[in-house]
Amino acid sequence: MILNEEAPMKLKLYSYWRSSCSYRVRIALYFKGIDFIYMPIHLVKDGGQQHHANYLKINPSKTVPTLMHGEVVINQSMSIFHFLDEMWPEPHLFPLDHYEKAQIMDICEVINSGIQPIQNLGVNQELTQRFNATQEDIASWNKEFITRGFNSIEYRLKDCSKDFCFGNTVTAADMFLIPQVYNALRFEVDMKSYPNIYRINENCLQRSEFIKASPDQQPDAQIG
Amino acid sequence: MILNEEAPMKLKLYSYWRSSCSYRVRIALYFKGIDFIYMPIHLVKDGGQQHHANYLKINPSKTVPTLMHGEVVINQSMSIFHFLDEMWPEPHLFPLDHYEKAQIMDICEVINSGIQPIQNLGVNQELTQRFNATQEDIASWNKEFITRGFNSIEYRLKDCSKDFCFGNTVTAADMFLIPQVYNALRFEVDMKSYPNIYRINENCLQRSEFIKASPDQQPDAQIG
Repeated sequence: MILNEEAPMKLKLYSYWRSSCSYRVRIALYFKGIDFIYMPIHLVKDGGQQHHANYLKINPSKTVPTLMHGEVVINQSMSIFHFLDEMWPEPHLFPLDHYEKAQIMDICEVINSGIQPIQNLGVNQELTQRFNATQEDIASWNKEFITRGFNSIEYRLKDCSKDFCFGNTVTAADMFLIPQVYNALRFEVDMKSYPNIYRINENCLQRSEFIKASPDQQPDAQIG
Repeated sequence: MILNEEAPMKLKLYSYWRSSCSYRVRIALYFKGIDFIYMPIHLVKDGGQQHHANYLKINPSKTVPTLMHGEVVINQSMSIFHFLDEMWPEPHLFPLDHYEKAQIMDICEVINSGIQPIQNLGVNQELTQRFNATQEDIASWNKEFITRGFNSIEYRLKDCSKDFCFGNTVTAADMFLIPQVYNALRFEVDMKSYPNIYRINENCLQRSEFIKASPDQQPDAQIG
C-alpha cells in the first residue's frame, strides 16, 4: 500500500536523540531533503516509552526508529533506507550498480547486524541482570564488539574509500558509519587505529545533513 | 565490477552447515535454481577456519557466508539477497512493490540484526570468557533473545501471513525465518507460543529448496 504521490503526507520519524539507528535515518532524510516531523521516544524515561502500548501498535519490536508515511509503517533502518531510495531516488543512498551496492550494503551490515545489536541498551541491561556486569564490564564489552567490527570496516575501506567510504560520494555506508563512530567515542575506542574511518568521520561531520542529524541537535537531546 | 553475463561463472558459497546466515543464502540459491559450488568453512575446527589468513582476504569480518561470483565477493546475507535478486530476478526474493518489500525486509531484519547477532558463537564465547557463563547460562541467554524477536515477528505475521510469511508466496522473510526456527529448536524455545511461525515452518520444510538447504543435507554436516 503506497500512498498516492499526488497527495503527499509529511513523514513522521519516531526517534531517540542518542539512538544510532535513528541517527542513520535522520542523516538519510536530510541528505534527500525530505521534510519530516520528529516524534521523540525516550528509551529510558517512564520505563522506556518504546514499551508503551500505543507505540507497540506501530513497532512490535519496541525499538526506534519507526518511519510513518501515511498508513505506511517501517521499523528497521535498512528497510527504511531502501524504501526512501525507491520512493525519492535522488540523491541515491545506494548506487545503481549491483556490485557497488553490495559492497556498500556489506559495510552497512557489518554495523547494522555485526556491531550495533551487540552493544545496544537491551543487551547491556541483560548483561547487568544476568551476570552482575558493572559499568566497566559493559564499557569493555561494547568496546570489544565495536573494535571487531571496525577492524573489518577499516580493511574494506583501504580499497574503496577516498573522502567518504565509497570514493568521493556520500552513500548509505557513511550514514551507518558515523553514528557508530559516535558510539565508539562514548566507549573510548582508540580511533588512531582506524585512519580511514577517522578521516571519513571528520569529512562527514562538516556536511549539513550530518550536522542537522547529530544527536545534540535533536529536540529531545539532553546535554550535560 | 559485474562479470559479463555472457561468460557466466559458477558461484562459490563459503558456508558452514549449521550457520543460520549460510542456511538463508542456500535456500535463496536453490529457490532461484542457481548452481553453486559448496566451500565448507568449519567455524570450530582448527581454531575456526574463518580466522585463517586465506579466508580473511575474502571476508575480513571472519564470518560465513561469503558468496563469490568471479571477482565479485559479498559477505553479508542481506547484501547477497539483494545482489541475487538484481542479477537473477526470477523468482523474486523481495516483491517489487516498495511497501511490501519494506514489510518483508522488516521481518528479515528482526532476525538479521535483532536476534541472530546476539545469540551467535562469537557472543556466546565472550559470555563464557568474561562472565564465566555456563552452558545453561548461554542457552538461557540465546532463548531470551530468540523469544523477544519471535514475539515481534509473530505479531507482524498476524496480518500478513497465510501459508508463508507474506500470503501464499515464498519470500526472503521465510528464508530468514526458517533457519532461525532451527536455532530456536536447539535452544528449546516453546514454538506453541508462535502458531503463525510454527505453521509457516511446517509448510516451508515441505519444499525442495528448504530441504536441500537444510543443515543436515550439507556435505560438511556432522550428525549425531
